[in-house]
Amino acid sequence: MIKHANFVAEPWSVRETSLDLEALAQAESIFALSNGHLGLRGNLDEGEPFGMPGTYLNSFYELRPLPYAEAGYGYPESGQTIVNVTNGKIIRLLVDDEPLDVRYGQLLAHERELDVRAGVLRRHMEWRSPAGTAVRVRSTRLVSFVQRSVAAILYEVEPLEGPLRVVVQSGLVANEPAPARSADPRAAAALESPLLPDESFEHDVRAVLSHTTRNSKLGLAAGMDHVVDGPPGTDTTVESLGDHARVTVAADLAPGERLSIVKLIAYAWSGRRSHPALRDEVVGALAQARHTGWKGLFDGQRAYLDDFWSGADIELDGDPDLQLAMRFGLFHTLQAGARAEQRAIPAKGLTGPGYDGHTFWDTERFILPVLTYAAPNAAADALRWRHATLDLARERASQLGLAGAAFPWRTIRGQECSGYWPAGTAAFHINGDIADAVIRYQSATGDETFEREVGLELLVETARLWRSLGHHDTEGRFRIDGVTGPDEYSAIADNNIYTNLLAQRNMQAAAEAVARHPRGATRLGVDTEEAAAWRDAADAVVIPWDEALGVHSQSEGFTRHQIWDFENTRPDQYPLLMHFPYFDLYRKQVVKQADLVLAMHIFGQAFSADEKARNFSYYEALTVRDSSLSAATQAVVAAEVGQLELAYDYFREAGLIDLDDLAQNTIDGLHIASLAGALVAAVAGFGGLRDYGGKLSVAPRLPARLERLAFRLLLRGRRLSIEATKTHATYTLLDGEPLELTHHGKMITVSTGSPVTEAIPPQVAVGPAPSQPKGRAPARRRNADG
Amino acid sequence: MIKHANFVAEPWSVRETSLDLEALAQAESIFALSNGHLGLRGNLDEGEPFGMPGTYLNSFYELRPLPYAEAGYGYPESGQTIVNVTNGKIIRLLVDDEPLDVRYGQLLAHERELDVRAGVLRRHMEWRSPAGTAVRVRSTRLVSFVQRSVAAILYEVEPLEGPLRVVVQSGLVANEPAPARSADPRAAAALESPLLPDESFEHDVRAVLSHTTRNSKLGLAAGMDHVVDGPPGTDTTVESLGDHARVTVAADLAPGERLSIVKLIAYAWSGRRSHPALRDEVVGALAQARHTGWKGLFDGQRAYLDDFWSGADIELDGDPDLQLAMRFGLFHTLQAGARAEQRAIPAKGLTGPGYDGHTFWDTERFILPVLTYAAPNAAADALRWRHATLDLARERASQLGLAGAAFPWRTIRGQECSGYWPAGTAAFHINGDIADAVIRYQSATGDETFEREVGLELLVETARLWRSLGHHDTEGRFRIDGVTGPDEYSAIADNNIYTNLLAQRNMQAAAEAVARHPRGATRLGVDTEEAAAWRDAADAVVIPWDEALGVHSQSEGFTRHQIWDFENTRPDQYPLLMHFPYFDLYRKQVVKQADLVLAMHIFGQAFSADEKARNFSYYEALTVRDSSLSAATQAVVAAEVGQLELAYDYFREAGLIDLDDLAQNTIDGLHIASLAGALVAAVAGFGGLRDYGGKLSVAPRLPARLERLAFRLLLRGRRLSIEATKTHATYTLLDGEPLELTHHGKMITVSTGSPVTEAIPPQVAVGPAPSQPKGRAPARRRNADG
Repeated sequence: MIKHANFVAEPWSVRETSLDLEALAQAESIFALSNGHLGLRGNLDEGEPFGMPGTYLNSFYELRPLPYAEAGYGYPESGQTIVNVTNGKIIRLLVDDEPLDVRYGQLLAHERELDVRAGVLRRHMEWRSPAGTAVRVRSTRLVSFVQRSVAAILYEVEPLEGPLRVVVQSGLVANEPAPARSADPRAAAALESPLLPDESFEHDVRAVLSHTTRNSKLGLAAGMDHVVDGPPGTDTTVESLGDHARVTVAADLAPGERLSIVKLIAYAWSGRRSHPALRDEVVGALAQARHTGWKGLFDGQRAYLDDFWSGADIELDGDPDLQLAMRFGLFHTLQAGARAEQRAIPAKGLTGPGYDGHTFWDTERFILPVLTYAAPNAAADALRWRHATLDLARERASQLGLAGAAFPWRTIRGQECSGYWPAGTAAFHINGDIADAVIRYQSATGDETFEREVGLELLVETARLWRSLGHHDTEGRFRIDGVTGPDEYSAIADNNIYTNLLAQRNMQAAAEAVARHPRGATRLGVDTEEAAAWRDAADAVVIPWDEALGVHSQSEGFTRHQIWDFENTRPDQYPLLMHFPYFDLYRKQVVKQADLVLAMHIFGQAFSADEKARNFSYYEALTVRDSSLSAATQAVVAAEVGQLELAYDYFREAGLIDLDDLAQNTIDGLHIASLAGALVAAVAGFGGLRDYGGKLSVAPRLPARLERLAFRLLLRGRRLSIEATKTHATYTLLDGEPLELTHHGKMITVSTGSPVTEAIPPQVAVGPAPSQPKGRAPARRRNADG
Repeated sequence: MIKHANFVAEPWSVRETSLDLEALAQAESIFALSNGHLGLRGNLDEGEPFGMPGTYLNSFYELRPLPYAEAGYGYPESGQTIVNVTNGKIIRLLVDDEPLDVRYGQLLAHERELDVRAGVLRRHMEWRSPAGTAVRVRSTRLVSFVQRSVAAILYEVEPLEGPLRVVVQSGLVANEPAPARSADPRAAAALESPLLPDESFEHDVRAVLSHTTRNSKLGLAAGMDHVVDGPPGTDTTVESLGDHARVTVAADLAPGERLSIVKLIAYAWSGRRSHPALRDEVVGALAQARHTGWKGLFDGQRAYLDDFWSGADIELDGDPDLQLAMRFGLFHTLQAGARAEQRAIPAKGLTGPGYDGHTFWDTERFILPVLTYAAPNAAADALRWRHATLDLARERASQLGLAGAAFPWRTIRGQECSGYWPAGTAAFHINGDIADAVIRYQSATGDETFEREVGLELLVETARLWRSLGHHDTEGRFRIDGVTGPDEYSAIADNNIYTNLLAQRNMQAAAEAVARHPRGATRLGVDTEEAAAWRDAADAVVIPWDEALGVHSQSEGFTRHQIWDFENTRPDQYPLLMHFPYFDLYRKQVVKQADLVLAMHIFGQAFSADEKARNFSYYEALTVRDSSLSAATQAVVAAEVGQLELAYDYFREAGLIDLDDLAQNTIDGLHIASLAGALVAAVAGFGGLRDYGGKLSVAPRLPARLERLAFRLLLRGRRLSIEATKTHATYTLLDGEPLELTHHGKMITVSTGSPVTEAIPPQVAVGPAPSQPKGRAPARRRNADG
């Protein structure tokens, strides 16, 4: 909103009131539609100009070789890269023979609106051609949450002044040329024409193209069908060949007349099924969509979202930008996972090709905590996907000489795709993040089927990994050496606290799970000795503490390293990894992203209040936030230690990362984990909500800017609403059994129809605000400063 | 000798009594001739069959891109690879129209002899062609130590029975096809046809080809000339084009007649000079060689080596294999550096393409300690080469954010070519190794010109590097964090003892040097504050000690890591780096090569005798010797702590590494540093010689197998001879001023003409022999076991 003067924050929509060609690519990410299975970037209907064309199918990838200057054992040889599949959203318009192109003629009006309540992207445009003819175009686009392989566009053309001859060309285009990309490692590897054409066919106003990826050998079919409503004499033709299919609609429009086209798009893909089967699947999906009709698809979308918002909304009074950011974040988090259905949730969702379309720990650490309480089925599906890759993870563990399962640091399909092991394979915490997401999901839903089918085995196999990864020293302490924690500026360290606490919780939970499921345990070959070994190791994990400084050391030796020379680091030298060698970063005290601070959020009970305040202050002075996975966590812990205004600034930074393009790479797709993190910052930070082992505690406390914070969440079959002002909090159980929770430490019980209102105790005095490294204060403060 | 039953150890030569085609490639390395500038692998004269054809010019390289799956700041983008240049040693023979090829017909006799006293490779062959004609061929090959761009071959053919028609085709061949190589990271990158032809010309029996490398744009000229002596009617022709030149000699030989050809070969190369200049240089070198003649070249070679051996021999009574190994090692060490003349000394010398022809710390740590006392000019030249690359090293330091100079971990020309920074850039000890070689050279020679021109600046720039690399902690200790020591199975660790002691010596020596050279110091911008900062840091370096175990920790935290599971590691899983991920190796107690043990040799005064014994025993149980740079050092320290038989076994392993192909990669070239290390093992191990700061101490003590050890060395203008038996040692000063030294701690003075004989004190009782990891005892013990 700050950077995009043409964006307006409305409670339920992002409205762009004019077209800024310079910010086209960012807007494409912001306006992306997805249901977790199919994703369309917010490219203009007519296809050009574009920042980055994008149509994605979850887990549809191409292989590329991963080269190494010096090879090493266990390095992955090939990587997976998300493919920009056949573009079905292209609708070109010729007005009296002139192609509509916003770069030519005169754009009289242009407005786009992402409506997160209706789940559609609307566009309204009035354009005068270079020849002087004026036309109005409206389009409404949706990717159906209900019919997951289907997208639809309602495209309407009418004359603004005199009569018009119009031709609409609705296309399918494969192997679109991609723009040249930067050397930024966060961008995707460019793939040239990854799709080999198999066959094409057309019938009436329907066409289907099918392709196979060159190396990964995945089959793809993309189809389109149309419902055309125009004045008498409207003609249609259809043609298709290789990489292109086209349905052409020609009409003469008198003033007051309108040409209306519903374009239905459907996809099918598989690594196993035949092309005829995929083609039939697409034709069937198109037939179903045609049967449902535009209105049916539109209404179904709204009904799906009404249900979602009834259990998941966050309201903020006092900051319209962030109010929108909350709903924008919830909507995109939902879009990333809603219908992924046992496929990975990528770091960028299906909004762009960033990070090659890979999934990381982002999913389990930042995205699933939101989905667990807002759309629990999507959370379960994401974990069921992990479970489905267990064989690959066991294979990887075995290759690494470890027991149990070692999940990949980055992947699409399940194979490790990380080409730099110190920040890939060594980041074993991802296994604990997965286990922690399992524990949280089970605790928040009580889903026993999931626990039996999925949870138990995931906990057991990750516990086995930790037990084999660590060892007892001569004093009986359980050490996990040589791993990389969340802070990627300190790799290959001994006894990273976050990692060790994750391992502890993981092994404890596995031991408890096998006790609950003796038959499942037997099936997995777990005996009582193995469970006892987990409990023993969990009890003995090393937690490094620096006695002299009176703070925890995020890993052994960290606090004895030299402190980074922040004073002489220029603003243009961030992110540091682009300007300094890993060698230098790893050996100094400089923190890329919340690490110990994340541990203090996730494992709050392992730290005293005083330790939290001291640790937060110490690490705050070292944390440069070169990762988007930091600000939200800093917000949560800042709020907990009483630094509410600092928390608010971090909260804003996390929430506006894409709406303000704060990381300057929104072009590559949205930072779903940061958006989800901002939701957590609201709920866990200012709401003070924690859910430790099924015991809900809430401790709201609002920063100056906010007058009111209200949020809803799903918890073990209940919908709970919490509303806080500066002075009071009200707990309302919308449905389900009565619930016990604590309000600022006081136990209360809420039942349906009996809201409970409690006063918020005054804030105890807190110390001076911690300081950040020079130039690394939260974005808003820097903007205020500079 | 064990593996090659066809090898015979003679005091001054390696004799191969029959041809083993299976071991052809290894023999090519063993029989390689070089003067440090030009190197010829011991390929058969007729070029085929070959294991690996090879002709090398020091520092003549091609560039190749270094790819990364994930890029990082400061990673080198291109690497340098040694080029197999135009082969001038090919002499093919046709006998009655049948090409002589040892794979066909019948090999009646075949003998080769590397004569390290004469400095030639002799070959004698009797062959019966498939058609039944028998011929005798003798060749003698040399690479001149006197005329550094020249090699020469005396090639003689005579009938064994009836008369013969013979044709000799003497060639120059560029871009020889190289055999497909393994994935072994120690092998060179294969380059296809790296040489682009420029021009060729011929005259009489002389031809010259000139080429330019494709990417590195280095110019090369290779020429040959011939002196033909045959019966009347002997004809010659010459032709040349592109990649080939050929001189053909045709003769009819009656029984008793002989065709004798002296082939003279010369090379010139440059990155700057023109092709005409290079061509003229080659023609000039050929003219000079022709003027000197075969006899002159042969006699000059012998005279050069007589001088060398008079100051450098090692004699062993009791083990003929090792007696030869000593001279083989001295000869190849000389060959690697003799006339390198301010070029790098590669790890393989010029005997093969292994490690891409790169130079590493091998040079300064293992090779120069031998050359310093045996051929000090060659040692000075190698260090002058380092000095010549100071600008590149300063640039690299600056790129890494450091002061002073950071020399490359691996390079040909001076640019960092390491594509894996944890075992490359992070191995900063190479800078201290260079400084230590400077200190040793200056102390051993008193070469003041060198100190002024080269030594001072090298010491200052490396001291600056250390000062900026380390920092003082709150207790005032000087820490060097996040570096990789010699043990490449423990990368990126804090306070590696070997590295810290090197930094200490380096900074102390730099401070002393600037005090001696105030004007030089001023020129280099060193003031008294800077020197004081070096002394202060040197005094305060951290030396990790494990109180509970009572041993030093080779770096902080090392002794708390899990001990490698040696019991369950199979013999075929060594070297471990080929079968386990770095991740696993780095986090456990397993030592690739002597690290703390190397520190105990190089910095003997920093450890008490008791610490040495305890440390040696502790690390011995962890050391797998997956590097060839380990056994020799283990031999030295084993001898010092009284484990003489173990020392002897390691000594053998180091000395026979290539003659027995113990590392199974002698095909890629000889392990010059291991061969040099074996010489050090004899002198410093069983001779007990140390030269700490110019104070010579000697403490001979022989293992059971040896009856006598005698060695000579050059020391500050003197030649010293030391001879030890089991009971007595005799010190003889061959020339120069009287010398003080200690014999087993007793101060003695030796003068010319007055040898001193001292009794060797009885060995005090030593503890039980340390044990090695399962299956990793020295080669001889394993052979004995298995």
